Amino acid sequence: MSAIRHALSTSREDDFAQWYQEVISEAEMAEESGVRGCMVIKPWGYGIWERIQRLMDDRIKAAGVSNCYFPLFIPLSYFAKEAEHVEGFAKEMAVVTHHRLIADGKGGLIPDPEAKLEEPLIVRPTSETVIGAAMSRWIQSWRDLPLLTNQWANVVRWEMRTRMFLRTSEFLWQEGHTAHADRDDAMNETLRALEMYRGFAEQVLAMPVIAGEKPENERFPGAVATYSIEAMMQDGKALQAGTSHYLGTGFAEASGIQYQDREGTQQYAHTTSWGVSTRLIGGLIMTHGDDDGLRVPPAVAPHQIVILPMLRENDEDEALLAYCEELHAAIAAQHALGEPIRVLLDKRPGKATQKRWAWVKKGAPLILEIGGRDAAGGQVSMLRRDRLWNDKAKANIQAMPREDFIARAAAELGDIQSSLFTEAEAKRDANIARASSFAEVEAFFSEDKRYPGWVEVEWARPTGAELEQVVQKLKALKLTMRNIPLDAEPVDGDCIFTGRPAVERIYVARAY
Amino acid sequence: MSAIRHALSTSREDDFAQWYQEVISEAEMAEESGVRGCMVIKPWGYGIWERIQRLMDDRIKAAGVSNCYFPLFIPLSYFAKEAEHVEGFAKEMAVVTHHRLIADGKGGLIPDPEAKLEEPLIVRPTSETVIGAAMSRWIQSWRDLPLLTNQWANVVRWEMRTRMFLRTSEFLWQEGHTAHADRDDAMNETLRALEMYRGFAEQVLAMPVIAGEKPENERFPGAVATYSIEAMMQDGKALQAGTSHYLGTGFAEASGIQYQDREGTQQYAHTTSWGVSTRLIGGLIMTHGDDDGLRVPPAVAPHQIVILPMLRENDEDEALLAYCEELHAAIAAQHALGEPIRVLLDKRPGKATQKRWAWVKKGAPLILEIGGRDAAGGQVSMLRRDRLWNDKAKANIQAMPREDFIARAAAELGDIQSSLFTEAEAKRDANIARASSFAEVEAFFSEDKRYPGWVEVEWARPTGAELEQVVQKLKALKLTMRNIPLDAEPVDGDCIFTGRPAVERIYVARAY
Repeated sequence: MSAIRHALSTSREDDFAQWYQEVISEAEMAEESGVRGCMVIKPWGYGIWERIQRLMDDRIKAAGVSNCYFPLFIPLSYFAKEAEHVEGFAKEMAVVTHHRLIADGKGGLIPDPEAKLEEPLIVRPTSETVIGAAMSRWIQSWRDLPLLTNQWANVVRWEMRTRMFLRTSEFLWQEGHTAHADRDDAMNETLRALEMYRGFAEQVLAMPVIAGEKPENERFPGAVATYSIEAMMQDGKALQAGTSHYLGTGFAEASGIQYQDREGTQQYAHTTSWGVSTRLIGGLIMTHGDDDGLRVPPAVAPHQIVILPMLRENDEDEALLAYCEELHAAIAAQHALGEPIRVLLDKRPGKATQKRWAWVKKGAPLILEIGGRDAAGGQVSMLRRDRLWNDKAKANIQAMPREDFIARAAAELGDIQSSLFTEAEAKRDANIARASSFAEVEAFFSEDKRYPGWVEVEWARPTGAELEQVVQKLKALKLTMRNIPLDAEPVDGDCIFTGRPAVERIYVARAY
Repeated sequence: MSAIRHALSTSREDDFAQWYQEVISEAEMAEESGVRGCMVIKPWGYGIWERIQRLMDDRIKAAGVSNCYFPLFIPLSYFAKEAEHVEGFAKEMAVVTHHRLIADGKGGLIPDPEAKLEEPLIVRPTSETVIGAAMSRWIQSWRDLPLLTNQWANVVRWEMRTRMFLRTSEFLWQEGHTAHADRDDAMNETLRALEMYRGFAEQVLAMPVIAGEKPENERFPGAVATYSIEAMMQDGKALQAGTSHYLGTGFAEASGIQYQDREGTQQYAHTTSWGVSTRLIGGLIMTHGDDDGLRVPPAVAPHQIVILPMLRENDEDEALLAYCEELHAAIAAQHALGEPIRVLLDKRPGKATQKRWAWVKKGAPLILEIGGRDAAGGQVSMLRRDRLWNDKAKANIQAMPREDFIARAAAELGDIQSSLFTEAEAKRDANIARASSFAEVEAFFSEDKRYPGWVEVEWARPTGAELEQVVQKLKALKLTMRNIPLDAEPVDGDCIFTGRPAVERIYVARAY
């Protein structure tokens, strides 16, 4: 039996980081732009983002949230106000200081010294401050609450070490910002957004996640509580894939978001914020990619089915193309996963096998190769991306009557969607262990295992200096606490850090 | 007969500029952000932009164009290269010079002098240069052409005098950038995009436009030919609402976009670019707004039908709401203009008449007021935004059986869409005159007419110094040449500027 010859030159087992870069390059997802820390997102990568946007936006709108657009630039003074309140204030930001270029007299251009801004502007790293200022204008009475806003935008955080999709200086995201009359309503919204993200990750991205609260040391600066969804990548590391924050009244106090309650008293609103970003695409790659490239879940695949006519540049091409056009129309008339099937007829010049492997690496869920014999016999030759190889180490192509394929296309796509989830969930669950002592944690991560996974431990939720000790102890092993799962089993032991009775469970892992 | 009491305090006739600001404010479209030249786009304004995006994007994708995303920042050196080539190079741009803030020791923050960028970055005013650099990487062979890309993005041009939606420092747009093997193919794409914009403006925005070529003096810097769609606002001024440029090989030469042709020779590609922006919303307001606020064409209305239950905070409210919920569901199950009807049940607290006028000012196409009597009698009371007043100067509310409304809802929306177009077209056509001498042009614009409109003249397409004289002569009357219509009647006279035989027709107008 011959060995499989995979489409990528680096396997996940060889070098996960290099494999990740190779997938991004070979699947034509993105590339370096020549601008420090910023990437160019290419059509296949951006197409996946557009699918994420559309399906997430449907969920955001269904929750009664309205999209708005706020300025890219934030005056420096807004941050000064925030810096007073917030200790962990991040300072790595792009600063606009001039508004004009002039010739330098040597054939080049320089910022015009005459056009220096009186107050520098910051390219938004997040929009809490500028949205807070708008909310303070929009909210007067309890009747104006809740105020539920969201924006889809680019944001910039000056990152020293960047990695495509996971950490880039500019990235795309949505940021929800809401204001509420009281803690309960704000907390409900915080958890609604978290649950929206959990459902989206699992149902749309086929990426199993743990929804839970971040420990105190990992809170968003200024937040009263931060929640996250955490996914396990195939190298065992955790990826924080979305966050939702209950901000208490702190941001409302800083921005002056006040309302008159039913009794006529002025009150500060309770606010929340929640976001997911193009980082989700990094998560998608590291969850579903294999040694042949990316595998895109059908729900977010820009093309779910790609038809490849095996053109020979001869007289038979015309009949072959006519057959493929008709097949394309018949498939496009079908629905899968609640939407019309997205099918592409790829008529570009090029060798059929090269084109096949290009689509394999991109991870199109279903590839249909149509040769002259298929057309003449009313057949299609189907390749399912998630079952790529047969037991002879060949591409697992199945021939079937055209009608049979059309009848089962939606079911195949649905099955790929659920199979990818089941496979990822099984992998994740196999790589989570419970540890009932710190020694067990150490043992788990010092095992001779390339990609160790996560441990679930019980703890007493220490705070202050005691928490800091825990953080440092874990840091020495390159570990972090991920989150405190919301749907955990009850505790039944002692805190592995303090020895006191445990109050909850928490995941410990290496992380992106 | 009593006079109509309009919902706005300023009429178009009184003061068009102030009326425009009042519509934007009263329709809750946008507001000043506190950041110079940048606006906050509020849910109703942004909802219209989302509709524009979705419907335009469908057309862009149907033309085989792929969306990508390119960096917000462009290194200064890219512009230096362009500045060499382009005379009319615009220099008013936001310049990023630092990447960190530090405390100034006095409780404030300043750009960290230690974190000065080696090379300043420009916030993109347009993306030709950075997309050109990508195209030079992506294109090697004739097989890679045409390369058709588009991005939806924010761009920044430092404007001294800003006006919401029409001219803001930051605005949202799409920019198409394509590369082709030869002039013909590139010119076809340029005109395809222009025709896409024309069809979109007329069919979707119900805004009649003239598609044509800009005169040489109005070309995009570096373009071989620039085309535009021009719309007439209700004050008679022209609004350039979209542009499409054939760039020849100049940008390809600057960016090194070369390909090997079928014969193996290296050739420069011919490129195009085309764009529309949030300016379209300004055009929408000034085309369809009236003295009661905005009127949104149903195709782009975030809510096409708004149901207003006349709640009385008593026991009858429950039955009333149940009736409205059922009505909402029945309407939402209908289709209009090729999509499910977008209907909102507005249950917010507040007086019914106040809510009615708020929706009138926003310009929701159909308002259904439902009182207890309507609910009991199985009726609805319908108000059509484009036929707001009856001949007694009262709100033109029509009662009808619920079933009748449901049966005709789609037709009403279709009729509003076409009525708005017909009305705008008639207004425009009534305000275009032909002038066969410059004296007639002067007379037309010096008439005692508040909002004069456009004149169509014949000219000999002068160039160089002769063209500059024409430009200056018009400038003295605050006039500009708008465009040379593509579907004009043949010329039959002499050039009004030079006296030579005319070669084509051109529109002359005041403009935004």
